[in-house]
Amino acid sequence: MITLTQMGQNAKNAEQQLSQLSTIKKNQVLKAMAREVRKSSDAILKANAIDMQDAEKNGVKKVMLDRLKLDDDRIASMADGLEEVAGLADPIGEVLKGWTTETGLDISQVRVPLGVIGMIYEARPNVTVDAAGLTFKSGNAVILRGGKEAIHSNQALVTALRTALKTETIAEDSIQLITDTSHETATALMQLTAYLDVLIPRGSAKFIQMVVQKAKVPVIETGAGNCHVYVDEGADLQMATNIIVNAKTQRPSVCNAMEKLVVNEAVAEELLPMVAKALKPFNVDLRGDERAKSILPDISLATEEDWGTEYNDYIMAIKVVDDLDQAIDHINRYNTKHSEAIITNNYAHSEQFTKEIDAAVVYVNASTRFTDGYEFGFGAEIGISTQKLHARGPMGLNEITSTKYVIRGNGQVRK
Amino acid sequence: MITLTQMGQNAKNAEQQLSQLSTIKKNQVLKAMAREVRKSSDAILKANAIDMQDAEKNGVKKVMLDRLKLDDDRIASMADGLEEVAGLADPIGEVLKGWTTETGLDISQVRVPLGVIGMIYEARPNVTVDAAGLTFKSGNAVILRGGKEAIHSNQALVTALRTALKTETIAEDSIQLITDTSHETATALMQLTAYLDVLIPRGSAKFIQMVVQKAKVPVIETGAGNCHVYVDEGADLQMATNIIVNAKTQRPSVCNAMEKLVVNEAVAEELLPMVAKALKPFNVDLRGDERAKSILPDISLATEEDWGTEYNDYIMAIKVVDDLDQAIDHINRYNTKHSEAIITNNYAHSEQFTKEIDAAVVYVNASTRFTDGYEFGFGAEIGISTQKLHARGPMGLNEITSTKYVIRGNGQVRK
Repeated sequence: MITLTQMGQNAKNAEQQLSQLSTIKKNQVLKAMAREVRKSSDAILKANAIDMQDAEKNGVKKVMLDRLKLDDDRIASMADGLEEVAGLADPIGEVLKGWTTETGLDISQVRVPLGVIGMIYEARPNVTVDAAGLTFKSGNAVILRGGKEAIHSNQALVTALRTALKTETIAEDSIQLITDTSHETATALMQLTAYLDVLIPRGSAKFIQMVVQKAKVPVIETGAGNCHVYVDEGADLQMATNIIVNAKTQRPSVCNAMEKLVVNEAVAEELLPMVAKALKPFNVDLRGDERAKSILPDISLATEEDWGTEYNDYIMAIKVVDDLDQAIDHINRYNTKHSEAIITNNYAHSEQFTKEIDAAVVYVNASTRFTDGYEFGFGAEIGISTQKLHARGPMGLNEITSTKYVIRGNGQVRK
Repeated sequence: MITLTQMGQNAKNAEQQLSQLSTIKKNQVLKAMAREVRKSSDAILKANAIDMQDAEKNGVKKVMLDRLKLDDDRIASMADGLEEVAGLADPIGEVLKGWTTETGLDISQVRVPLGVIGMIYEARPNVTVDAAGLTFKSGNAVILRGGKEAIHSNQALVTALRTALKTETIAEDSIQLITDTSHETATALMQLTAYLDVLIPRGSAKFIQMVVQKAKVPVIETGAGNCHVYVDEGADLQMATNIIVNAKTQRPSVCNAMEKLVVNEAVAEELLPMVAKALKPFNVDLRGDERAKSILPDISLATEEDWGTEYNDYIMAIKVVDDLDQAIDHINRYNTKHSEAIITNNYAHSEQFTKEIDAAVVYVNASTRFTDGYEFGFGAEIGISTQKLHARGPMGLNEITSTKYVIRGNGQVRK
């Protein structure tokens, strides 16, 4: 079997060619990948059937089985995704800044690929194709390590992608999949500092923390979202209720879904019954502090653990606060620095909230569900960064690039 | 003694105040720090005398002693540095991008502080003051861990800085120094993921690699520079010679100094004697491959080890190549991705070199010595990043910040 070091070397060898491809060529290759995925759908479905059988045999949970399962629609949507990436602007070569120094040097800061990206993720096979498309378009080589449950599906998908690379005379090792699904190999990938420029983990909060602890390669943390909506004194309570229902129930399993409602005591008595009523059809398990419970006696009492928990489910905890300062303190203490919203009509409060809340995305009068590469207009995303280094918030093509300075002179030497 | 966790907590507590300071206030504090450093010069010199005595007793090398030593001029120059930082533009609050989405959300990407920065460095006490000034101006808290040789000097300097903070009613723990100089504490700092947003090591290549291996906090690698100058066929050989002399000898101990000369064989016979003659007054130890030695018989033969070594000294190795492709292959193989130059008058070659060389800064017809925050016009630098994540090349104030998205809506929910 091929060693990780060899895979790293292969990726490095592919890197030079990838970094110099024209946009026309890259888009042509992405379209060829889409065609090849569609053409291979029988093989992909067969491989996926094996994964599904194994997973059922191993008692994998139903929600996980649903993530793993492929069908014609899902394969078509992966292929469509590759064509969409072909339609996105090429980030490489963009000049971010440029100036002339006192000595007449012309300095340009130019966008370049990162180099080799490691992706480590859990069950969903579509991540394989999404990640390969985005890393290819941005001129990067990628080494993929998907979940062991999806290994046959991932192999079939990567075979299709590599066939397209070969047909288009692009180094096949631009896209490599680790087929050894042992934990040892995963750990070795996280420590492959000689070849990887960055490691992007996707999965549960627990999984990502495990990667952060073990990795020596720089990691971009993605994901966990314990998102709050704060309703201020004087807010439009109907707007607040609409936003809360949307943020909580439109897709509760995702990281930008709302988990906590923080309410100013001045509006709690009017708002909370409105919210409880609006959430009723969704069977949301409501929990609250003493003050919330005094208004909604049927809800259960929230524990300290609730405030820090990302439920990813039809559960919401409610905290009543005296004022904006208390709301900000509470949110900055318990949030995961993902997405936080204030519903207000007070200008000074909107300014204070957006400045003082520490999160990737801070909203005034809108649902937290908009933290998303497509909604931002990036066209696609490779994840949502909740750390502060390199990229913060939805990561599109620009966020998986680096820069270099190009300096043109006419003989300058330093005095 | 205070624990690292407590220091981390203290820094986090200071972070909120720091992130909200006005530019006027920050500049006022920086000027107060400068005054306090000047006022404390007796105490600083006394503390430094103890460090110097200890270092001499412990047989510390002369070059290190010179780095450690403070005098009135050096203290004045640290204070001047703080005033210069006060004069720089404040990066916080800058809007990097802004747009309106189809649903009418106004999205702004705003520059914010990183949060808490860890600095770990070797002997020079001026790094203490430089780092404190830059991290303060960019709204970050900092935890400093300098070399044990400089501990008394660093304590005296940090006492002065914190006195200024206190006078200005800024949380003193915005700037903290670790006084326990054990390796265990240094390692614990590198792994303080709960409190540090980034760790910036400064020192030798070996020191930085040690930090990368041990750290769990994200690291920005700085420093090592095995820089090349390639002289192309048809280049202006007098310009090439001037640039080589400058890049090699103007300050050979620094990371942007040239270490290797790569020459096209078409000009080697004419160029190498010119270079040897021009370097003669500097007693540069020249080494070369077979072809270089056949032109300059007195030089020694370079070994494989030479090609990958950063000398930081009056030593230079010479490689003769057939063409530009061979030069690019050689440089991309052995360089440390710092600064690389081509001397040419061929347009296509200048384009190929700047596109294909993988380095933080790529030059045409200029000395590699310009890779520097001051020369770039950043006003100051906290180091030169040789990695591709977050920041690449000279790091000024902008490079020690993060961003957040602020989204203003009027009730939008996701469909």
